[in-house]
Amino acid sequence: MPTTENFSLLAFGAHPDDIEFGCGGVIARETLGGRSVSFVICSRGESATHGTPAQRTREAKRAAALLGATVEFTDLGGDAHFEVSVARVLRLARMIRRGRPGIVLAPSVVENQHPDHAKLGRMVRDAARLARYGGVKELRGLKPHAIGQLLFYAVTPGAEPGDLTRFVIDVSPPDIMRAWTAAMAAHASQAATRDYVELQLTRARLNGLRCGVEHAIPLFADGLPVFNSLEPLARSARRF
Amino acid sequence: MPTTENFSLLAFGAHPDDIEFGCGGVIARETLGGRSVSFVICSRGESATHGTPAQRTREAKRAAALLGATVEFTDLGGDAHFEVSVARVLRLARMIRRGRPGIVLAPSVVENQHPDHAKLGRMVRDAARLARYGGVKELRGLKPHAIGQLLFYAVTPGAEPGDLTRFVIDVSPPDIMRAWTAAMAAHASQAATRDYVELQLTRARLNGLRCGVEHAIPLFADGLPVFNSLEPLARSARRF
Amino acid sequence: MPTTENFSLLAFGAHPDDIEFGCGGVIARETLGGRSVSFVICSRGESATHGTPAQRTREAKRAAALLGATVEFTDLGGDAHFEVSVARVLRLARMIRRGRPGIVLAPSVVENQHPDHAKLGRMVRDAARLARYGGVKELRGLKPHAIGQLLFYAVTPGAEPGDLTRFVIDVSPPDIMRAWTAAMAAHASQAATRDYVELQLTRARLNGLRCGVEHAIPLFADGLPVFNSLEPLARSARRF
Amino acid sequence: MPTTENFSLLAFGAHPDDIEFGCGGVIARETLGGRSVSFVICSRGESATHGTPAQRTREAKRAAALLGATVEFTDLGGDAHFEVSVARVLRLARMIRRGRPGIVLAPSVVENQHPDHAKLGRMVRDAARLARYGGVKELRGLKPHAIGQLLFYAVTPGAEPGDLTRFVIDVSPPDIMRAWTAAMAAHASQAATRDYVELQLTRARLNGLRCGVEHAIPLFADGLPVFNSLEPLARSARRF
Amino acid sequence: MPTTENFSLLAFGAHPDDIEFGCGGVIARETLGGRSVSFVICSRGESATHGTPAQRTREAKRAAALLGATVEFTDLGGDAHFEVSVARVLRLARMIRRGRPGIVLAPSVVENQHPDHAKLGRMVRDAARLARYGGVKELRGLKPHAIGQLLFYAVTPGAEPGDLTRFVIDVSPPDIMRAWTAAMAAHASQAATRDYVELQLTRARLNGLRCGVEHAIPLFADGLPVFNSLEPLARSARRF
Amino acid sequence: MPTTENFSLLAFGAHPDDIEFGCGGVIARETLGGRSVSFVICSRGESATHGTPAQRTREAKRAAALLGATVEFTDLGGDAHFEVSVARVLRLARMIRRGRPGIVLAPSVVENQHPDHAKLGRMVRDAARLARYGGVKELRGLKPHAIGQLLFYAVTPGAEPGDLTRFVIDVSPPDIMRAWTAAMAAHASQAATRDYVELQLTRARLNGLRCGVEHAIPLFADGLPVFNSLEPLARSARRF
Repeated sequence: MPTTENFSLLAFGAHPDDIEFGCGGVIARETLGGRSVSFVICSRGESATHGTPAQRTREAKRAAALLGATVEFTDLGGDAHFEVSVARVLRLARMIRRGRPGIVLAPSVVENQHPDHAKLGRMVRDAARLARYGGVKELRGLKPHAIGQLLFYAVTPGAEPGDLTRFVIDVSPPDIMRAWTAAMAAHASQAATRDYVELQLTRARLNGLRCGVEHAIPLFADGLPVFNSLEPLARSARRF
Repeated sequence: MPTTENFSLLAFGAHPDDIEFGCGGVIARETLGGRSVSFVICSRGESATHGTPAQRTREAKRAAALLGATVEFTDLGGDAHFEVSVARVLRLARMIRRGRPGIVLAPSVVENQHPDHAKLGRMVRDAARLARYGGVKELRGLKPHAIGQLLFYAVTPGAEPGDLTRFVIDVSPPDIMRAWTAAMAAHASQAATRDYVELQLTRARLNGLRCGVEHAIPLFADGLPVFNSLEPLARSARRF
Repeated sequence: MPTTENFSLLAFGAHPDDIEFGCGGVIARETLGGRSVSFVICSRGESATHGTPAQRTREAKRAAALLGATVEFTDLGGDAHFEVSVARVLRLARMIRRGRPGIVLAPSVVENQHPDHAKLGRMVRDAARLARYGGVKELRGLKPHAIGQLLFYAVTPGAEPGDLTRFVIDVSPPDIMRAWTAAMAAHASQAATRDYVELQLTRARLNGLRCGVEHAIPLFADGLPVFNSLEPLARSARRF
Repeated sequence: MPTTENFSLLAFGAHPDDIEFGCGGVIARETLGGRSVSFVICSRGESATHGTPAQRTREAKRAAALLGATVEFTDLGGDAHFEVSVARVLRLARMIRRGRPGIVLAPSVVENQHPDHAKLGRMVRDAARLARYGGVKELRGLKPHAIGQLLFYAVTPGAEPGDLTRFVIDVSPPDIMRAWTAAMAAHASQAATRDYVELQLTRARLNGLRCGVEHAIPLFADGLPVFNSLEPLARSARRF
Repeated sequence: MPTTENFSLLAFGAHPDDIEFGCGGVIARETLGGRSVSFVICSRGESATHGTPAQRTREAKRAAALLGATVEFTDLGGDAHFEVSVARVLRLARMIRRGRPGIVLAPSVVENQHPDHAKLGRMVRDAARLARYGGVKELRGLKPHAIGQLLFYAVTPGAEPGDLTRFVIDVSPPDIMRAWTAAMAAHASQAATRDYVELQLTRARLNGLRCGVEHAIPLFADGLPVFNSLEPLARSARRF
Repeated sequence: MPTTENFSLLAFGAHPDDIEFGCGGVIARETLGGRSVSFVICSRGESATHGTPAQRTREAKRAAALLGATVEFTDLGGDAHFEVSVARVLRLARMIRRGRPGIVLAPSVVENQHPDHAKLGRMVRDAARLARYGGVKELRGLKPHAIGQLLFYAVTPGAEPGDLTRFVIDVSPPDIMRAWTAAMAAHASQAATRDYVELQLTRARLNGLRCGVEHAIPLFADGLPVFNSLEPLARSARRF
């Protein structure tokens, strides 16, 4: 368990724009606050209606740069072709052991979103477990690592889990909103079909209005959060 | 909404020992950390099998002193006779306006515990709402106050709500456990019937084992918690 | 059970602006489509921070007129003072017998909103049941009436029930949005404190984006809906 | 999204009799109303205690004919041998693109029924998503298609999902009940072991009694239903 | 806690026919097995569409006799006029202390049934708690009593709770079904309006078909059941 | 369905110590009561931080002997490498047909525990279904078998399902606790890392305190339990 505040963050996305759309404002908040953040993107968006893999890759790199995160790609079978398997879970577990993050971000496991999202969420969840076990032969050579917390983000409102500990992150400061908006806009190929940017800004505004701030993003904890005191809990979203 | 860390805490209990049994370790953690904590106890335990009202009052005062909290009493119809009414809710709302706490603690509204517990939880929840409205005539003369967060505690494991944001507070430091145990033991009249102290210590130990600490106490947030960054969330109870 | 399409609508609100904020767009959709709609408002908002009862009454009448609905007032103990009682339920049941509506609208019974909202929701739910029973002496002289359906609206997003059949009404046509916005703006006294109009328009836009329409409002059915065929069900909100 | 009432219906069944037993009355209601309905049956029932694959195939064809539906067969690994895979999901997605249905029917994803049922439900759900994405290479040559709604049926009462929007279809008219009963009876090989026909008729009668009609069948919406007005919602099952 | 098998049963009903319709077959099973059963009926059905209070009382007495149970009446405000209050709860608690039952039966607390049903369920639940506390002054003179278990029955399918431990009682033996059917038929005044008897027999048959028996009735445990071994658990309703 | 009390018990564990830690006290209760119990252990714990496969096998055999159970091993891909497949499910179904148990025990399907636990739970659930179907070709030569009940145990508190029928088994007698504790201690290799034995004993003590007994273990029924009378249900855990 991380004992200091200097933990790093590892965020997984199924498609080149999922992290930005689902929790880009949270990423900006962390990197602007000095935290080291890495992205792992698990496809090149090759089944989407718009954008070539090369274009999607460029967009993802540019978006990560705008958010101050590093980015690497991996392949879990291809966009719209993810399948959950232990071999893939172990690949993700190796990445967790290599990066030794304090917090991991992944898409929620709500089954009714894009099939790849929930599958990636399930694989990351399992990967975070296997990264801890000392005897897994495929992971030898990398020291076991127990992450501090796995947080799920929801790429769309329909993917927000109703049965997990939920909270919101205030992303109102203008520099954060600017970085987030720019990172979403970097995925220009996706603007043709759907109003993703407006969807996310509207959702963040609605969450912000509920909390009495400008904009906010919901996240969902896989493990019960542990606190040392009530101090971090003194602020609730109950404004109306 | 409280803007500094110096908010105070107001805890409501239905019977003289409920706060101590349900979340005494959390109280000790806060007072030992320098926070100002007040208790409002809403009966004298006059329907219990053991202990006279006078004895229960003495025990409650001594327990509050051991925890470093001030204590006052109010009457909501008598032990085992609570009834939810707007007049009583307004009485609690006046106390909230007077104390201007950042965080309020109340028993959970899970209906299947002692009937008084859930009724008090519901009345405190409503009181925290009414304390904010500027035009409530019974509250005139006291400035409206919006609390930062309402947290529910569970006097028994069966009263833990399954549908609210849940987290645990680490109460392991020996001075905290000592203060908590002493405060529970101060309710000597209740030791005759049931193993309340053992119940709570066993429960805190089980929650501690799950988090990799010595002892921990679960709490439940009525309002969605809002954070400014991921930093407070880097520690999860997932140890097994 | 109503056998034709010409049923009328009866909407209950706890405070002068609740119906408009919670489901005003749905009301506009129905009245612009030729349906007869009546409002029953159960307080004059006399505990609110802003606005006198007289001012609130004028605003409510004007808003109802803008939506094409008739309005009458009743008193359930006063704003912030509602208490659930059979006598009050029977008063509401008389109104249901008098109006003989096909559909009744009421605020949801989710307990964590303004206490009056959930209390009114529970009383309307009970009133709709008692309106059917032939032998209730306080209701004599008015013919028993079984409504077709009770629908709950949520004044705020936090009051949306998670455990009832949920669906959305498309309120995108410009004349509907214009009428709804004007009706919300008619409650000018409430604009001082909170961004209610922006909250509702943001929420309707988010629901609209999810459905691929401009704006939409969620409702919740108290009784399982019965259909004669699949035809009305061929349109889902799953756009992302 | 289908813009007219003339959408067609595509129903998937894991075994030769699942559609008939789970929602045959709804099928009859639609075909008797003039709608075009196609069945896709995903095994020949070859692991059942009674009936050969040839016999089961004949029974399925005859039942579909009695219901006025066309029928085709596909193979997902064999009865009791279904496994969820992207390749199979894409096969189902091709069928959806070919048929371009407005509404798709599939067995519920409740995990505790026959394992094949939930697996097929999950694959159809994913197939309906993939059918929309323009770049999926295995689907090239068939125009992307977004269905209007995915509805789940429950082959047995234990497979009824508790967490989805639920409603019932009135199937009382005698010609509908006759067609449905005949279609179930066409699966003569299955009558040896269990009282499937009595189970379904008893269940439809119980649902009918609850709604004040003769017989009714419950269905469950995967996507939030969108309506243009309250008119279709004026009839509820609350009769007792 | 009852230590022998010879515990008695106390069943509460809101209206003269509720116990019979909701769980009459279970009552017959127990009395035919030699158990002593008492009914407490809390109104005379005076708000119903059909039947005078005198007629309803006669019907209730005859039905109880057919089931082998004793019956007494109490008044909680009158049919359709129940209100939850501590005074009424204490009245029920006195009855529990007087009868000292091992098991108590009450209508479920699901809020969406007849309002009286859920109110009675809540009052009996509280009464069973207060009956245990030694110091309740209104209960003096009657020895405290802790019941073994509180079981809820559902008068209609819509009142079956989804969140409690659920199980079914096999009521198939012909003498049990005969006694139950006769007891329901004894409420002749109610046969005019609704098909209550058919509703209950259809429901019992559906539950029976699911278990592989003729007829079965669902019940719901308020307290977690405790067993000494797995032996009583070797029979499940999973037949389809 | 088993018709006598002499049914046997078949318990599945993913790793060599799971059955002991999750429900060892229940096993001891049954074997000491004369019931025949068999264990199937599905890995040798080869990915654990401590203990070699040979050592883990010896420990498992010794623990089973201490509990009076027979033990056999099977391989589902290796520790931390389980994958759900029909071939593996059929292997488990063969074991069920061979053993013809009345009750089967398996780890819960709650997804958030060790990934292997939930996967085994799902495979056993499916295996119990397939064991019944007469035409499954891989199972030929072994007579179809319908088990009486599938019960889930939870290896850790976090794996306790919230949505299944739950109950507890009293395991207080000293000979039972002695056998259970010895069986857990037999897994000496696992004592190095985590306080598993203390976790389980603390958990059993907390459950015991809630029921008024010394120690108790929770179990979860996959199928709705069927009883012939209320007699087994007269004891509830509601002590506080």
